[in-house]
Amino acid sequence: MKKGLASDNYAGVLPEMLEALVEASRFHAKSYGYDDFTEKAKQEFVKHFGNNIEVTFVFNGTGANVLGIGCAVESFNSILCADSSHLYVDESTAPETFTGCRLIPLATDGEGKIEIETIRNGIIRKGDEHYPQVKVFSIAQPTEYGTVYTREELLAIGELLKKHDIVFHMDGARLFNAAVSLSCSLKEMTRDAGVDILSVGGTKIGLLFGEAVVFFNKKYSQNLRCRQKQSMQLPSKMRFISAQFHRLLRDEIWIKSATRANEMADRLFEGIKNIQKIKITKTVQANSIFAIIPAEWNESLQDLMPFHIWNERTNEVRWMCAFDTEERDVDEFIRLIHNLDNI
Amino acid sequence: MKKGLASDNYAGVLPEMLEALVEASRFHAKSYGYDDFTEKAKQEFVKHFGNNIEVTFVFNGTGANVLGIGCAVESFNSILCADSSHLYVDESTAPETFTGCRLIPLATDGEGKIEIETIRNGIIRKGDEHYPQVKVFSIAQPTEYGTVYTREELLAIGELLKKHDIVFHMDGARLFNAAVSLSCSLKEMTRDAGVDILSVGGTKIGLLFGEAVVFFNKKYSQNLRCRQKQSMQLPSKMRFISAQFHRLLRDEIWIKSATRANEMADRLFEGIKNIQKIKITKTVQANSIFAIIPAEWNESLQDLMPFHIWNERTNEVRWMCAFDTEERDVDEFIRLIHNLDNI
Amino acid sequence: MKKGLASDNYAGVLPEMLEALVEASRFHAKSYGYDDFTEKAKQEFVKHFGNNIEVTFVFNGTGANVLGIGCAVESFNSILCADSSHLYVDESTAPETFTGCRLIPLATDGEGKIEIETIRNGIIRKGDEHYPQVKVFSIAQPTEYGTVYTREELLAIGELLKKHDIVFHMDGARLFNAAVSLSCSLKEMTRDAGVDILSVGGTKIGLLFGEAVVFFNKKYSQNLRCRQKQSMQLPSKMRFISAQFHRLLRDEIWIKSATRANEMADRLFEGIKNIQKIKITKTVQANSIFAIIPAEWNESLQDLMPFHIWNERTNEVRWMCAFDTEERDVDEFIRLIHNLDNI
Amino acid sequence: MKKGLASDNYAGVLPEMLEALVEASRFHAKSYGYDDFTEKAKQEFVKHFGNNIEVTFVFNGTGANVLGIGCAVESFNSILCADSSHLYVDESTAPETFTGCRLIPLATDGEGKIEIETIRNGIIRKGDEHYPQVKVFSIAQPTEYGTVYTREELLAIGELLKKHDIVFHMDGARLFNAAVSLSCSLKEMTRDAGVDILSVGGTKIGLLFGEAVVFFNKKYSQNLRCRQKQSMQLPSKMRFISAQFHRLLRDEIWIKSATRANEMADRLFEGIKNIQKIKITKTVQANSIFAIIPAEWNESLQDLMPFHIWNERTNEVRWMCAFDTEERDVDEFIRLIHNLDNI
Repeated sequence: MKKGLASDNYAGVLPEMLEALVEASRFHAKSYGYDDFTEKAKQEFVKHFGNNIEVTFVFNGTGANVLGIGCAVESFNSILCADSSHLYVDESTAPETFTGCRLIPLATDGEGKIEIETIRNGIIRKGDEHYPQVKVFSIAQPTEYGTVYTREELLAIGELLKKHDIVFHMDGARLFNAAVSLSCSLKEMTRDAGVDILSVGGTKIGLLFGEAVVFFNKKYSQNLRCRQKQSMQLPSKMRFISAQFHRLLRDEIWIKSATRANEMADRLFEGIKNIQKIKITKTVQANSIFAIIPAEWNESLQDLMPFHIWNERTNEVRWMCAFDTEERDVDEFIRLIHNLDNI
Repeated sequence: MKKGLASDNYAGVLPEMLEALVEASRFHAKSYGYDDFTEKAKQEFVKHFGNNIEVTFVFNGTGANVLGIGCAVESFNSILCADSSHLYVDESTAPETFTGCRLIPLATDGEGKIEIETIRNGIIRKGDEHYPQVKVFSIAQPTEYGTVYTREELLAIGELLKKHDIVFHMDGARLFNAAVSLSCSLKEMTRDAGVDILSVGGTKIGLLFGEAVVFFNKKYSQNLRCRQKQSMQLPSKMRFISAQFHRLLRDEIWIKSATRANEMADRLFEGIKNIQKIKITKTVQANSIFAIIPAEWNESLQDLMPFHIWNERTNEVRWMCAFDTEERDVDEFIRLIHNLDNI
Repeated sequence: MKKGLASDNYAGVLPEMLEALVEASRFHAKSYGYDDFTEKAKQEFVKHFGNNIEVTFVFNGTGANVLGIGCAVESFNSILCADSSHLYVDESTAPETFTGCRLIPLATDGEGKIEIETIRNGIIRKGDEHYPQVKVFSIAQPTEYGTVYTREELLAIGELLKKHDIVFHMDGARLFNAAVSLSCSLKEMTRDAGVDILSVGGTKIGLLFGEAVVFFNKKYSQNLRCRQKQSMQLPSKMRFISAQFHRLLRDEIWIKSATRANEMADRLFEGIKNIQKIKITKTVQANSIFAIIPAEWNESLQDLMPFHIWNERTNEVRWMCAFDTEERDVDEFIRLIHNLDNI
Repeated sequence: MKKGLASDNYAGVLPEMLEALVEASRFHAKSYGYDDFTEKAKQEFVKHFGNNIEVTFVFNGTGANVLGIGCAVESFNSILCADSSHLYVDESTAPETFTGCRLIPLATDGEGKIEIETIRNGIIRKGDEHYPQVKVFSIAQPTEYGTVYTREELLAIGELLKKHDIVFHMDGARLFNAAVSLSCSLKEMTRDAGVDILSVGGTKIGLLFGEAVVFFNKKYSQNLRCRQKQSMQLPSKMRFISAQFHRLLRDEIWIKSATRANEMADRLFEGIKNIQKIKITKTVQANSIFAIIPAEWNESLQDLMPFHIWNERTNEVRWMCAFDTEERDVDEFIRLIHNLDNI
């Protein structure tokens, strides 16, 4: 199918990842993560996130989130998260079935970000056995709407959670795009802000498959391997995930890939922001644009570059750029929009 | 790490699978299995297993088993399986946690196969609310011990289960090796024997990753996609699994790969079967050999070709051949054994 | 402890219930509900709710709700309920842990009732495997705030749910108080409105212990006994619950008991409604009053009759009447309020 | 229904328990166990079991077992228990559904007792993430077959478990009968032997309903109330269970009741032990007799006193005595047996 703006998981695979896979397939290697590729990949995580962490590699984003959170909870706990988060609206009941816990949805500021006051109001009834005891707070960085928490916002959240002994979980399905957006290191945006458990997305940045889970607080990774196996997220040929992450981090391909995706979103935004008939609905900070456009444009635009209608009622659309979005793709798309606008 | 006999998931990747992956990565494709590669792969399954089936692709073997079985049970049910099966002894509590059900272990005949009388004795207390109601019977074909149920044995099991309205699940992590061993089609060994739900192993036959689940009885696949998402086994870039299976089946690479593995096991067996100090403990029918050997041989042999000590008490070892085991590997291993025997 | 207005489960036991227990204890009886008391109690339910129903008896309200709902769902489903409902805020994670499903909180009209438009907006993404599929809608009648859905409101809800193939669950922890409030039969308020599964509270109306679950739609009770045992809610001496329900229904003690409790709440309401310093926050329709009172009154009032501070921030209090609340209790309480008001 | 030998939960209620219930119903009391009756009952447990314990009261035996064990496990754990135990064969999948863990059945010595060597062989693969990690070992005292572990056997088990850091759980559904059988204190048979978590049966000794859970190791009761609520075993009117236990222990009614039941079993045993056509199959140590009798006797005997056919194939029957079995009941039953024997 033709290249489009539908999703960064419609995209293919970064050429460097294919190279890494071919290389990793040349020899035998121990299964279930006891291989050298996995060891080397973990070293790259240490370089990027600091010492004294625990890292593992899993198949997919839902697996990363559920495994990470699952390591921190008991079944009478609850998990606070944005009511628009992927965790809440796009991962079926995986969190509940696997952990037995409750997800409690928090309202957002309209751009997918949770305000600190909202978190504070969600931390209630501690010690009351009748109420699911709040144990984890989870955000996505960037959010489902492509917005990015600032480092100051993250720090404030981290402090609040620490005070209440609540685990800080970050769903970084598009973590690299956020880091590039904030021009900060991966560590500054996660560990330094007080994040305890982190999902790091590989698939959307251009891996063939695979995500990572990072524990900054080893208290929660004590039984990691048991939970990973139990949650069906312990790959037998783990090296084929870790080899990709190794390459992604070592050669800073993540910077190149995320920068490209973010820049293309920005280029698109710049090209259309002044069109009266388009209403940009969320601040453009990473690699996606949310906009309300005339419904009669959908067909022509999707013909050129497929994308998702996010909200059928308002005709809000999502345009998602990826590592393989090219300037000419974007420019052609902008041109068509201007043409439609001028009809 | 050097090539060995440790496990077929220590092996690398079939070159044709790498080709298929590179090809599938060239274009954009719909996510979550709505792509053309997946459609074409399903058509290959229809060719091999017959019409009117449901197929999906998942990450790993535990996921395939738990998803398949999970589609057939309610949480007050039980699942009968061999006490030595991978499902029972090597998949942590994934089945219990995800289904709420009980696994009930059945004794085997010493070679990992469950006798029909044992199954019959396990089907008890129907309608008694105090007892987990038996709903699924699961075997591995071949078994953990590399033995293979004959088609007659499978048919007899299928009939018994049908009579008691019990779902027949087959864990085919090494299904292709069994089919080659029995010189029968995939369909004859599964659907024709009354199997309802089947896990088809890809990783061990030479895929980079990925397994399939096949439903011959669509009654159990009604909510398949919901359960697949919920069990964290719905790959966003599913095409990278299906493209491999498509190639594996279309070009009959599975026959080549399984034949090679089985033949190498047979070659090894023939080369050592007359050695007095070695006791072959399980009938060699697929791609593995179980044997009790003198413990003092372990070091030299593992130096040449690493393998697992299956039972430390008796020094029973497992030698597992894969698609990439070569004649000269085997011959060299045999030679070393003879040398050790003659010291 | 002295009699109070804290909760109807602080109250003792209706004398007729004690008589029924003593009587049921005189002989041996089959265990687990296969006894005559249970049979006779079920007949009373048929008299009150109509033919072709399934009834069972359980230990407590959380058990009744979770068992009833559990019979209707698969683990990838979701359950819509009021964000202020007992099910959502006072039953820990029992629903999630037992069913694997998600509870989705719906906003209420400020009095604990869910508006039909809110329900409609909650029924989304049918067939989308990424989203927990909505299967059950649950209300409490009366609500946590002592308000009562009218028969017309219930009918409208029932129709909407039927259209979307969603199960209508009613938590009737105080069902009898609602029926008396609406001056309708138990059947009119439940079955006739389209309720599929009903929890009937015994403990709060004056039983020593015990609740009932009624299935108007037998599709959901097919595996009832298995699920009941599995959810640890199958009493071995079930007769001691059913004997009480038998008596409660046969002799219409529920009418007497609920009428008393409702009348006492009404008497209290009438006695204080004109006091300026008190703000009645919820319409008084059953056996409780919610009111914001001056915080400095708490101590004196609780000294006389203990009660719960519902909302510490606003000093909203809950005064709950029971079958054993007497006119002189209420009058004395009213007198004290007037005294406090006049200081 | 007439008095029989079917089960001690067919029996009625000890008169002292009814008295205690009536007394506890006279006043209001705090709900959910924060009442004085519960406090006083806990003091009685301290008197019988020693200081520094945690006690709570639940509805039924399955609830007691699952709650107690649930407090000690994580979902990747396994629980070793007798393959004939109530926990394994008569509690549906309650343990799996609530804990996510596996129950692993151990063979017994033919009398329902697990030999120490069998336990030792079950403690395997520690630290291996592929295998459910053994965390709890559970026995019933007395066993399902009415046999009783000696204090020496219990001590040996306790020591072995301690060495392997495995939690010792005891299902004491008929604990009092065992204590009377061993002529030891409740503490000697439990805490002193190393038991960590204990279910104490009330229903079978003559309560109207209710069981207790005792934690000798408070490490496991840290989240007790949350887990109790979550497992639907937190009674709102808990005082009606605790008041019975208070009386049972304070007035040593348990000794009287258990002694009576045991003596009646012994009287029956003595009266029939020399009859050739009867084969006593299990050592008679508590309040039940297991025997193979001529099938043609069933009807006449059950006509006089109903009982369970335990094994239809061999016509092994179970005769269970209770607190209300009388000497004349037993003597009449013995007489009938002799008559049948002489036909």
